Amino acid sequence: MTLPMDKHLVETRLESRELLKGSFLHAFEDVVRLPDGSTATREYVVHPGAVMMIPLIEDANGACRVVLERQFRYPVGRVMVEFPAGKLDPGEAIQVCAERELREETGYSAKEWARAGMMHPVIAYSTECIDVWFARGLTVGEQQLDTGEFLEVFTATPDELLQWCFESKVTDAKTLTGALWLQNMLSGSWQLQWQPSVGSAHSK
Amino acid sequence: MTLPMDKHLVETRLESRELLKGSFLHAFEDVVRLPDGSTATREYVVHPGAVMMIPLIEDANGACRVVLERQFRYPVGRVMVEFPAGKLDPGEAIQVCAERELREETGYSAKEWARAGMMHPVIAYSTECIDVWFARGLTVGEQQLDTGEFLEVFTATPDELLQWCFESKVTDAKTLTGALWLQNMLSGSWQLQWQPSVGSAHSK
Repeated sequence: MTLPMDKHLVETRLESRELLKGSFLHAFEDVVRLPDGSTATREYVVHPGAVMMIPLIEDANGACRVVLERQFRYPVGRVMVEFPAGKLDPGEAIQVCAERELREETGYSAKEWARAGMMHPVIAYSTECIDVWFARGLTVGEQQLDTGEFLEVFTATPDELLQWCFESKVTDAKTLTGALWLQNMLSGSWQLQWQPSVGSAHSK
Repeated sequence: MTLPMDKHLVETRLESRELLKGSFLHAFEDVVRLPDGSTATREYVVHPGAVMMIPLIEDANGACRVVLERQFRYPVGRVMVEFPAGKLDPGEAIQVCAERELREETGYSAKEWARAGMMHPVIAYSTECIDVWFARGLTVGEQQLDTGEFLEVFTATPDELLQWCFESKVTDAKTLTGALWLQNMLSGSWQLQWQPSVGSAHSK
């Protein structure tokens, strides 16, 4: 939402140096020119981008449920309830990534996909951007977790998920954003454009 | 939401070493014991915690508006529409921080406050937790921006904000979470417990 008249807000890069190259964290410190002409430093993490999936499934009566995960997240020291998500591989198309990650983490493949939007989880210190997708027409298969990845897959009704958001039992910001999308999609306020699977789910 | 029976998910710390102590980023690499007894490393940023405010204001007809900011966020390279937020000072109580940050960033003081809940913006690689508060009964004063801080304050209707979320014009995850809270608070689905200002807004 940067506009042509935003010069009084924009910061521009003067220098950049690598602060840290870990096995996961890749951090930089840049010197930037501020809108008033002075300089400041900005420290941030570079992230490859990710995709989150809101998988819709019907119960025996045709009522909507969503597929969720429970996973221990070490930095926050607790088991989190989350929508499935994963990082983009280099050069990977976003829908291909979404289909791959859904299959690997949950075992589900989806016949139809709809891109909802995107979010930036941590604009103060990371470049990370998460694309948000809905998936429907699920068929179940085998989970293919990475080595060292431990998570549980379960389903819940939208009302249960929203109640957990209200009670701070769900606190993962991407999943809270997914709940906003789910609520407005189900009420008909926010429309989706569905498209077929690109089929990567079966290509590996 | 970690439960007593979650031993098959929980990771425990074996060792910890500092990877980076920047002027802002403070990163660690820990060796952890996985649920199956094997070990892995976890890299993450330690964050002091933050608070986000959803400030409610009435227009001349008594209709609800919210106070928002436009601010350039260097890591994502764009001007973002956000609810006001700020980091906790060491030892600072959360409501005191909320009142201080609202006053400094927007100039507004609020007569009443309600804690909504909390969110973790980036559970894969940061300890950051953001407390979510509503504020109402606003009176206007002077902005007190930090040196090098440039932002615009404006107001919008809840419908405008929700439309921007739908259109990915608002992509900041904390603000998307705030939109979920706002929508459910206004519909009456999610109730708040209001309490008076603790008065820090006038103590400095």
